[in-house]
Amino acid sequence: MTDHHVIFMPSGKRGRFATGTPVLTAARQLGVDLDSVCGGRGICSKCQVQPGEGSFPKLGVTVSPGALSEFNAVERRYDEKRGLKPGRRLGCQATVQGDVVIDVPPESQVHRQVVRKAASDKPIVMDPATRLHFVTVEEPDMDAPSGDLERLRDALESQWGLNGLEIALPLLRQVQPVLRAGNWQVTVAVNHDENRITALFPGLRETPLLGLAIDLGSTTIAAHLCDLSTGEVRASGGMMNPQIRFGEDLMSRVSYSMMNPGGDLEMTAAVRQALDALAVELATEAGIPSGDIVEAVIVCNPVMHHLLLGVDPVELGQSPFALATSDALRLAASDIGLTSIADGARVYVLPCIAGHVGADAAAVALAEAPDQADPLTLIVDVGTNAEIILGNRERLLACSSPTGPAFEGAQISAGQRAAPGAIERVQIDPVTKEPRFRVIGSELWSDEDGFAEATKASGITGICGSGIIEAVAEMRMAGIVDAKGLIGSPAQVGSSRLELDGRTHSYLLWEGDDRRIQVTQNDIRAIQLAKSALYAGARLLMDEAGVDTVDKITLAGAFGAHISPKHAMVLGMIPDADLTAVTSAGNAAGHGARIALCNRAARAHIEGLVRRIEKIETAVAPRFQEHFVAANAIPHATAPFPHLMAELTLPDVSWNTASEGRRRRR
Amino acid sequence: MTDHHVIFMPSGKRGRFATGTPVLTAARQLGVDLDSVCGGRGICSKCQVQPGEGSFPKLGVTVSPGALSEFNAVERRYDEKRGLKPGRRLGCQATVQGDVVIDVPPESQVHRQVVRKAASDKPIVMDPATRLHFVTVEEPDMDAPSGDLERLRDALESQWGLNGLEIALPLLRQVQPVLRAGNWQVTVAVNHDENRITALFPGLRETPLLGLAIDLGSTTIAAHLCDLSTGEVRASGGMMNPQIRFGEDLMSRVSYSMMNPGGDLEMTAAVRQALDALAVELATEAGIPSGDIVEAVIVCNPVMHHLLLGVDPVELGQSPFALATSDALRLAASDIGLTSIADGARVYVLPCIAGHVGADAAAVALAEAPDQADPLTLIVDVGTNAEIILGNRERLLACSSPTGPAFEGAQISAGQRAAPGAIERVQIDPVTKEPRFRVIGSELWSDEDGFAEATKASGITGICGSGIIEAVAEMRMAGIVDAKGLIGSPAQVGSSRLELDGRTHSYLLWEGDDRRIQVTQNDIRAIQLAKSALYAGARLLMDEAGVDTVDKITLAGAFGAHISPKHAMVLGMIPDADLTAVTSAGNAAGHGARIALCNRAARAHIEGLVRRIEKIETAVAPRFQEHFVAANAIPHATAPFPHLMAELTLPDVSWNTASEGRRRRR
Repeated sequence: MTDHHVIFMPSGKRGRFATGTPVLTAARQLGVDLDSVCGGRGICSKCQVQPGEGSFPKLGVTVSPGALSEFNAVERRYDEKRGLKPGRRLGCQATVQGDVVIDVPPESQVHRQVVRKAASDKPIVMDPATRLHFVTVEEPDMDAPSGDLERLRDALESQWGLNGLEIALPLLRQVQPVLRAGNWQVTVAVNHDENRITALFPGLRETPLLGLAIDLGSTTIAAHLCDLSTGEVRASGGMMNPQIRFGEDLMSRVSYSMMNPGGDLEMTAAVRQALDALAVELATEAGIPSGDIVEAVIVCNPVMHHLLLGVDPVELGQSPFALATSDALRLAASDIGLTSIADGARVYVLPCIAGHVGADAAAVALAEAPDQADPLTLIVDVGTNAEIILGNRERLLACSSPTGPAFEGAQISAGQRAAPGAIERVQIDPVTKEPRFRVIGSELWSDEDGFAEATKASGITGICGSGIIEAVAEMRMAGIVDAKGLIGSPAQVGSSRLELDGRTHSYLLWEGDDRRIQVTQNDIRAIQLAKSALYAGARLLMDEAGVDTVDKITLAGAFGAHISPKHAMVLGMIPDADLTAVTSAGNAAGHGARIALCNRAARAHIEGLVRRIEKIETAVAPRFQEHFVAANAIPHATAPFPHLMAELTLPDVSWNTASEGRRRRR
Repeated sequence: MTDHHVIFMPSGKRGRFATGTPVLTAARQLGVDLDSVCGGRGICSKCQVQPGEGSFPKLGVTVSPGALSEFNAVERRYDEKRGLKPGRRLGCQATVQGDVVIDVPPESQVHRQVVRKAASDKPIVMDPATRLHFVTVEEPDMDAPSGDLERLRDALESQWGLNGLEIALPLLRQVQPVLRAGNWQVTVAVNHDENRITALFPGLRETPLLGLAIDLGSTTIAAHLCDLSTGEVRASGGMMNPQIRFGEDLMSRVSYSMMNPGGDLEMTAAVRQALDALAVELATEAGIPSGDIVEAVIVCNPVMHHLLLGVDPVELGQSPFALATSDALRLAASDIGLTSIADGARVYVLPCIAGHVGADAAAVALAEAPDQADPLTLIVDVGTNAEIILGNRERLLACSSPTGPAFEGAQISAGQRAAPGAIERVQIDPVTKEPRFRVIGSELWSDEDGFAEATKASGITGICGSGIIEAVAEMRMAGIVDAKGLIGSPAQVGSSRLELDGRTHSYLLWEGDDRRIQVTQNDIRAIQLAKSALYAGARLLMDEAGVDTVDKITLAGAFGAHISPKHAMVLGMIPDADLTAVTSAGNAAGHGARIALCNRAARAHIEGLVRRIEKIETAVAPRFQEHFVAANAIPHATAPFPHLMAELTLPDVSWNTASEGRRRRR
């Protein structure tokens, strides 16, 4: 029998095959990434390929007409019923008849690359845990009785080489009706990460299944509903974490649990209900039945993690901040109240790094992959609790720092969440001390024509996190606030926007008919506490790593995406660095969840990486306190911030030293 | 260093050990069965041994005083606090100092033999799936953070060589409080059959854990609550299967499900609730917290099996009687509604043999072990559905036969369940045709002095299953009933106890002030149908095996224990055999459940055996119909029953052939 050269593109994998070998068989033998759900029966069309024609000098072959067999009856039927693109063939039907170059189009590849959602997103290569497998199951035979499930398992073993697949009880209930509805042909969703059957469909199912990538934050829950074969995001959405009614930040929720017996269970029930509702909402938005969701990946901080699992987070409220469990978890979705999705659906929870460095930080590490790069990268995920990661290929360090909710607009006199009407960007003229600003919902600055019209609907309602950061930094840059964080008096600053406010001063940012938006001395103090905690955490890791500067700073978190690097550095939130080396990673935790959802190998990778990450506990490190105190100044009491100072000069002002003198005397 | 002979009894295992070797260490190295929960810390006392003294000529050693080390501080403290029996030592503390013979008393052996509950019970050797392991867990360390669960797992691995243990979410919730309550010392219940943690206790737990062996029948649910370290039955009990309200027998329940959408779920909920209530009841009776129950083994017929699992049994109501699943199942107890027992408790469900031959039949095979004997044994488990097994070491065959509930007293005019007041034994004088009988609750026959007094409380309320079998057989032996099953007229029989009853006759067994207990022609017909089904099933297996006689007949089932072999054979329920070869096995299914509960290896054994058993489907076998028809006669139309006829002679009477003639004419 004659052998022919068969070359698959784009992989370039090649081999010699006998006349009559199906293309799918050749692909499998060479390990070429060619999809198939029906296992070569010519009905699923997943294995479509495109043979080349003519001469391929670089590959050293010439493809003659007739290099593949002619359209057979199966392909003709498929083409008539469903339509094949010109030139396309079914890989399981077309057989090799001569030397041939075969292109595997992206949609026929299992491991295709996902189209990015945001420019900052690292690319994802599909390697989904969940795959569909079509099988024909033997009918029951009284003379050799065996269970329908056992014959289904036999079919999966003989037709797909899958063995020992587990199945949950609620899904067992479906086995008999589905087998009969499909006339003994069924499509089985298998979670290969767990070697489990997670859904059953009569006949051939071609509609892709879906998975949820969930970023469960203390304040908001965000989720992407993703197509598990293309990685495409079919719907995205978020909702407030209903646990907020038990406490604004993590520690107040831990306190709630300590003060109220059974309080943790209330919070567990609340968040589980919310997740289930969000799943239904996204399914509705995407126009799919929620039963098509067979997987979810969840990332969250340790307190959310424990509350989700039904574990009292009380130990996370006190040293030594012991986690109940730190390893990644693979659970039945129904175990955590996700009961509206597929009966057999599974949940993967990323591992936690330490008592205060959770699965969300692990997800950031997965998304940003500092372990796969040479530059020393500092990643800060800014939230109520900041997760900080420092490192590169050689070594990775992580800590968490209790920044509090000031960066999210809480504890700020005019603070509010990022919503239309919130001031998000601020500029202050260093001479006139007059501000201009932008609010969420409009691209116009407040001194531009049409601003009033553009903001009429939303109004100007307050300052969000990024707004307050810019406001304070601009006040420092304009000489309104001194290095110690003190707001000057109207006389000292020379502007009527400064107003006496008890024994301190405030800066009037905006005045409307019935609302005044000011930055108060208390606001500055709150921001100073938050930014000192963040800086001190980063600095502690740099001490551990024995460095004084980093090569790259990545601001992660939905909020991090809106922070201006310059203002963050003026404020001293982050260590000094070349401003061009400071970038935003968008919602890196959420993106990490999506990676773990779409790529099974990423799960093993992050589980291994978490073990390698060195955890630094800020709460008890004496140097953390020192760093925290020194970082109180704006930008810093001792660190020179040379990169920043090369870009700008901060006014050398100092207000009200007398009052400090008075304090000392008491 | 000097070596010494160390010989363990009763195993006789011996080896040479250096001076100072702890006895427990020597035992482990030799594979001697010596228990330990605390892992050699001298606190659990499970490893108690008794050193011999003096000369042991058969063993070739002489034990001198001082062959073991002197009592050390740990043993002294233990002895003072808890008391050691004279001569006893703690195996983990006493060290070898000279040649020594060491007796391991039964209570220190894990694999001790269980004391039998009934003479018919096959012995059980303990090899429990659940074992207790005491561990000391490392405290959390902020500098090397890891979850409490991970450190617990590490301790189980380093201290007991156990790795990869799984744990359920509800138990994860307990990890942190239990570790702290026990000051980082905990006792862990591990289910070695599943490599799972099933319960956690602070400090050292010595109180044994318990397991349930459940025989889930269509009519009654029976359970034993067993000590998982000694196998001792701590409480036994039963209750009616509440599914009875949905249908008296299996097929009527399947019909209920077919006629009422969601009806199967109602029945599932009912039986799950009943099981949970029974667990609580038995725990209360034994005076233990129901949370000490960490395991349950369930045996049942396929319809009960499916309804317990939440699978619609509709397929079991029609050919080809396909099971949803036939393999053994390992489930979370909470998955089947056993929520009152330990949070992490597990359930093992024995495998089913075929669509009508369930896990109960598998349990009977396990208990009776025909596969481990040479005689060809016929085992019949009599119930609403009879399970029949035939075979020996060479080959095993099984079938199920739809006997209906007549053998349980249902469909019988005066029939009732076996309860005080029910007639359970009957004798009829062949000359006078006068009966005497015994009722449940008294040892006296009805013609003995004191009978009236003894049965005053219960009254004489009806006839139970064994009573009707004896009554019909005695009627045949006394010439009241002919071979065709026809009751003679008063004139034909010559007794006024015969009464005209429509167009047929009845036999008056007893008459009280307000009640008459008769055996009617319909009763005889019902018993004939039931016994024909049973006989035909047995005969079908004998055909398959190519034999005309069997070596042994075992009557299993709670009811089987009360059947008189002679009467069963006169009736033709069972094939002819030497009467001494017909024995009762008591509740073999329940005993099989208990074996699987106490002996882990038995689970693997029955799973393998079930695959080897050849299943015969009676419902569609044409020969079954032939056998059924021929078996209608009492004892049989054609089989000569030589063994039986050697023991007794049956009157050669034949009544009312005219009426048959009339029927034919219509």
